[in-house]
Amino acid sequence: MAYRLYYWPGLPGRGEFVRMALEAAEIPYSEPARDDGVEALLSDMEKREEGGGFAPFAPPYLVDGDVAVAQVAHILTWLADRHGLGGDDPQTDLGLIQLQLTITDIVAEVHNVHHPVGSGAYYADQKDEAKRTAAQFREDRIPKFLGHFERAAALNDGPFVLGGKWTHVDSSLALLIDGLHYMFPRRMAAVKSDYPKLYALRDAFVDLPAIAAYRASDRCQGFNEDGIFRHYPELDAA
Amino acid sequence: MAYRLYYWPGLPGRGEFVRMALEAAEIPYSEPARDDGVEALLSDMEKREEGGGFAPFAPPYLVDGDVAVAQVAHILTWLADRHGLGGDDPQTDLGLIQLQLTITDIVAEVHNVHHPVGSGAYYADQKDEAKRTAAQFREDRIPKFLGHFERAAALNDGPFVLGGKWTHVDSSLALLIDGLHYMFPRRMAAVKSDYPKLYALRDAFVDLPAIAAYRASDRCQGFNEDGIFRHYPELDAA
Repeated sequence: MAYRLYYWPGLPGRGEFVRMALEAAEIPYSEPARDDGVEALLSDMEKREEGGGFAPFAPPYLVDGDVAVAQVAHILTWLADRHGLGGDDPQTDLGLIQLQLTITDIVAEVHNVHHPVGSGAYYADQKDEAKRTAAQFREDRIPKFLGHFERAAALNDGPFVLGGKWTHVDSSLALLIDGLHYMFPRRMAAVKSDYPKLYALRDAFVDLPAIAAYRASDRCQGFNEDGIFRHYPELDAA
Repeated sequence: MAYRLYYWPGLPGRGEFVRMALEAAEIPYSEPARDDGVEALLSDMEKREEGGGFAPFAPPYLVDGDVAVAQVAHILTWLADRHGLGGDDPQTDLGLIQLQLTITDIVAEVHNVHHPVGSGAYYADQKDEAKRTAAQFREDRIPKFLGHFERAAALNDGPFVLGGKWTHVDSSLALLIDGLHYMFPRRMAAVKSDYPKLYALRDAFVDLPAIAAYRASDRCQGFNEDGIFRHYPELDAA
């Protein structure tokens, strides 16, 4: 039976990190909430919450028979284990999980740029605060995180973190780079040349035939202002 | 050889989640930056960053010989694997990791309450914004997260998530409850009765002889305004 990916319909969001790995590995999956509407997600979550097991706190989560796994980094390392999307030895896998959790950290900070004072409130209600958050994120956090990921991309001979084979970290880093470009096109254009190996990794990943096919399909949703990475021109600067 | 825990000296911070599990399991460890000053941490991090391996992005990280593991949830699941601080089967371990990552999420939101618009800037420079963030955290986020953790605490017959045996999730939940009480004493006093199983879990954990001994020792640092959980009376309300 194919996996079922539960996530909010209408936005790539955090679900896209899971889709990137599933699509690159050509692992079949369905999306109940995209096929049948958000109610399919809400009723499934409620059922799990009342079911007396380890319920997801929030989407995305991936279901395989009786098992439901939530939290992006957790889903990806679980998939990596089952489908060989990690390394060849436990130490390498530990290092990859650590990197994936650092990607989780920057994604949380990205969310915070658009929702600095109310994670459940609208951007429109916190625009002034977002300007300050965006400035420090652009100036301090992007170089700190991308410098770290550039060093990871340089660990082997490229294009991927482990060399010729892509892992769940590469699929997430490629999406992160594209998301940051959507969010801050001027800032990212200004810093791009500082991270040659990270951009080579991103390019190699999107050139994978399965990813090229995915991006050309209607399964692939563009970034938008309901997702994690949002483009508000007033928050960008070189 | 005992583990070495690297973390900022002078604050419990995120390092305390690691200490809680190490102390409860009576696993020996040393803290180079508490023994020898912050320079011991900074020079070790720099060495690892230049060492061509998977380097920590930030403290805390735990070192055992040639292996260094960073990210609190990752450190704890790694310790759980080695020292039996998890469940008895893979599905249970997956559920525990998922909970631990949800604790990571609320801890990131706690940090954000005090640093809404500048994660690298001082609280004093973002006090007005912090008031808005604190209000939505107190009113919306605390019930959402603690309701989820209360259901986890009710999965078995208590006092811990898996029943009679504590795991890495219980040690983190106990610290979380204490941290939130330090942060928002008025708010937490007002909601405490909504989470009887979670508080029973916390009480059972701090009653473990090893934790009682730790809390009475000078290894245990109190919460303070350099840590993750900070008490600013102006941010609290019932």
